[in-house]
Parts: sequence; structure tokens; C-alpha cells
Amino acid sequence: MKTNVKFYHAGCAVCQDAEKNVANALDPEKFNVEVIHLGENNSRIQEAEKEGVKSVPALVMSGNAYHINFGADLSALK
Amino acid sequence: MKTNVKFYHAGCAVCQDAEKNVANALDPEKFNVEVIHLGENNSRIQEAEKEGVKSVPALVMSGNAYHINFGADLSALK
Repeated sequence: MKTNVKFYHAGCAVCQDAEKNVANALDPEKFNVEVIHLGENNSRIQEAEKEGVKSVPALVMSGNAYHINFGADLSALK
Repeated sequence: MKTNVKFYHAGCAVCQDAEKNVANALDPEKFNVEVIHLGENNSRIQEAEKEGVKSVPALVMSGNAYHINFGADLSALK
């Protein structure tokens, strides 16, 4: 069984770079990475907040939020 | 040829968590991850700074620094 991972982003340059170099670098044998564009899916902002996401880009893995550098605050996407 | 990645940390709880859940999650078929404890290897702080690292924990991949959450400012480790 692979572990599900979420990568939240908002299409910004910092986000795109983190997706390419970090999210895509995760071991495909162990992880399924779901990529979620919060700018296009506002309805999922609440879900991200519940998982502890404060800004994008961010990975949610093993129940924890990992903010990777800083692209945009979640509040700016509402 | 695998790509070399550096994971800089300072032994803090945020660092240990990021090492376990993010650094160790990178694809072992593609990446060699070097783990560097800057608290114990002060001499490498300058190297980290040159690579754009501002705080730990951080990954340096493909010439870019990816700060993962916030454990400690690099200046606090000097």
C-alpha cells in the first residue's frame, strides 16, 4: 500500500518550482502524490487548513503539513 | 547517476520530523541524500549560506534551497 500525500499549491512560481523539484522527487514506490491547485479549487482550502497548512506550496504527509519556502498565504486564496 | 541532495538540520524537533518524513521520502533510485548537522558542523554554515539556506531544516536540490517549516535561523547556529 502506498501512502497518500497531498501537494497544495496556487500556481505561483515558488509553487511550480517546489512541485517540480520536491513533490516529484518523492519515492513513487512508496507515495501517491495528489496535486491540488487551491486557486482553482477554493472548496478545498478548508481541508488544507484542517491539515495545518498555512501557506503554499505545502506537502501534507503522515498527518503533518510541510511548508516549502513561501509562495502565498492561504488567506490570500479565499 | 544519482543526484546529490543535502539536508541541513540542527537536531531540533522540527528538523528531526522533516528528516524522517520528507528527506527520507525522496526517491532512493534518483537521489543521494547527505544529512548535515550544522550545530555539530559549524564549518559548513558558510556552504549552506552560499546555497541560499536561511533556516533549518532545509533541502538543497538542483541548486535551490527548500526551507521546510521553521526550526532555527542559520544565524542562531553560528
